[in-house]
Amino acid sequence: MSDKKTYDLAIIGGGPASLAAAIYTTREDISTVVIEKGVLGGLIAITDKVENYPGFPQGIEGLNLSDNLREQAERFGTEIVLGEVTDIATDGNLKRLTTTDGDIYAKAVLIATGTDFKKVDIPGEKEFYAKGVHYCATCDGAFYRDKRLVLIGGGNSAVQEALFLTRFASHIDLLVRSELKASEVLQHELEDMVHAGKITVHLNTATDEIVGENGKVTKVLGTDKKTGKPVEFPTDGVFVFIGLKPNTGFLRHIPQLKFDEVGFLVTNDDLQTPIPGVFVAGDVRSGATMQIATAAGEGAAAALKIRKYLETL
Amino acid sequence: MSDKKTYDLAIIGGGPASLAAAIYTTREDISTVVIEKGVLGGLIAITDKVENYPGFPQGIEGLNLSDNLREQAERFGTEIVLGEVTDIATDGNLKRLTTTDGDIYAKAVLIATGTDFKKVDIPGEKEFYAKGVHYCATCDGAFYRDKRLVLIGGGNSAVQEALFLTRFASHIDLLVRSELKASEVLQHELEDMVHAGKITVHLNTATDEIVGENGKVTKVLGTDKKTGKPVEFPTDGVFVFIGLKPNTGFLRHIPQLKFDEVGFLVTNDDLQTPIPGVFVAGDVRSGATMQIATAAGEGAAAALKIRKYLETL
Repeated sequence: MSDKKTYDLAIIGGGPASLAAAIYTTREDISTVVIEKGVLGGLIAITDKVENYPGFPQGIEGLNLSDNLREQAERFGTEIVLGEVTDIATDGNLKRLTTTDGDIYAKAVLIATGTDFKKVDIPGEKEFYAKGVHYCATCDGAFYRDKRLVLIGGGNSAVQEALFLTRFASHIDLLVRSELKASEVLQHELEDMVHAGKITVHLNTATDEIVGENGKVTKVLGTDKKTGKPVEFPTDGVFVFIGLKPNTGFLRHIPQLKFDEVGFLVTNDDLQTPIPGVFVAGDVRSGATMQIATAAGEGAAAALKIRKYLETL
Repeated sequence: MSDKKTYDLAIIGGGPASLAAAIYTTREDISTVVIEKGVLGGLIAITDKVENYPGFPQGIEGLNLSDNLREQAERFGTEIVLGEVTDIATDGNLKRLTTTDGDIYAKAVLIATGTDFKKVDIPGEKEFYAKGVHYCATCDGAFYRDKRLVLIGGGNSAVQEALFLTRFASHIDLLVRSELKASEVLQHELEDMVHAGKITVHLNTATDEIVGENGKVTKVLGTDKKTGKPVEFPTDGVFVFIGLKPNTGFLRHIPQLKFDEVGFLVTNDDLQTPIPGVFVAGDVRSGATMQIATAAGEGAAAALKIRKYLETL
């Protein structure tokens, strides 16, 4: 035997799906390493307040929830490694993970790398992240009851979420860089809301900066691309819906893995990829709902499937 | 318009899947009623300690978790009705639920009635429920590290869980009422554990009583059915694996619903039954993992699917 680091399970990514799985596996003495390249907790670690994770009646700060998950996983013996995985390969009966922290070997692998929301990349976007700038209407829409909103985007999801956010917001300015690309059905529904005075659509409008005062978003600065003139939109918050980026770039060269058209990983009902022993859970999986509760639940379910797989070895 | 009680969503059952869904729907102003026939919280309300629900590093009392879920759902406006649903029927654009508390109408229905574990029905079983008598190895096995266990059952799940529990228990007495009915593969693995001295199999053994002292299980009394003589097994805990009973009895007469061979409800990927607008989440759904985290996650996912359905009406 060599001195290479070998685990029953290596989990790539350190968000709720990963940590929920690790709580389950380590509690059952399945040795588990979690490899996270950025901040442990994933997107929740940089989320201000989580109101809809079941179990916390008054909500919980994202960072606290993230700390709780880590503490619970570590309590049962989860090892956490900071590093970036760059490849997965089969090596005899094991999977070999190439990481910036050296090679890691495991009998099974769980990919739980999550999804990033595409950013506009303008001043103020990062500064007010989760404190006025949001990417998930289901998560954060309810914080904007009777408030003004600016939405950025012009595709199906932007229009769909604009319609949904009219439940909460008093008025929505929808900033579309060029033309609307949403389906006709959605555009008809959008027109109704425009006539009702709930939404104003601004076509050919570039978004240049998100401006705030005292830690709160106050307005969005843009440019009318037809006239070249600056425009501004007073608002209480900004939602950006310009697309999703599943964190699967480092896997795209592996021919046995299956991706959907956006790049999410496709699995069977057992959350397993076409490579035996390689599983997927959470936001990175095709069909994911992008909710903390479902990611955590899927992590727990994946742990049970992985246990069954390990028993067959 | 009549004065009949009409909601956007009626949820049958009040466990984690139900309450998680209600947190999501009511937070989005989808009017929601939860109809529970017994104890709100479902099985968790009568569970001593939950160690693996993600978010609580030191575990949480089942009753506390259940109270938290209820409080969170009520905070956003969930109505809770105590009553038993006896039928679901389509009535124009609505579903009509016949309940012991009168008729309830809703645009959509979520069935989240859960599953009961079959009971042996012997003295001591109820008294020590979740405090020495258990029905889920994944949930409670880890509490029995280096302890003695008695397991009751002789089918596939009993033998599978016996093998799994050898990870924790120092020794297991497996009480089988008649003969083993597990698959040959499992029986071979069982033999290995018998030779290793980890498991002792007692065939033709009736289980008569679970006995305890000072609130702790100390032994199981039985009868050797061949000799008719009493037998007893000192133990720290008892696991019962004699089958599952999904709570779908009140629905079996509805021809459009689809059940698997055990009686769990079958849905499509959108958690919807063949009846449009009737959804299923949690332990009662075919394929469920019987974990609180997955039930809660599925409740949240169902809420998003139901929202989409309601938007089409």
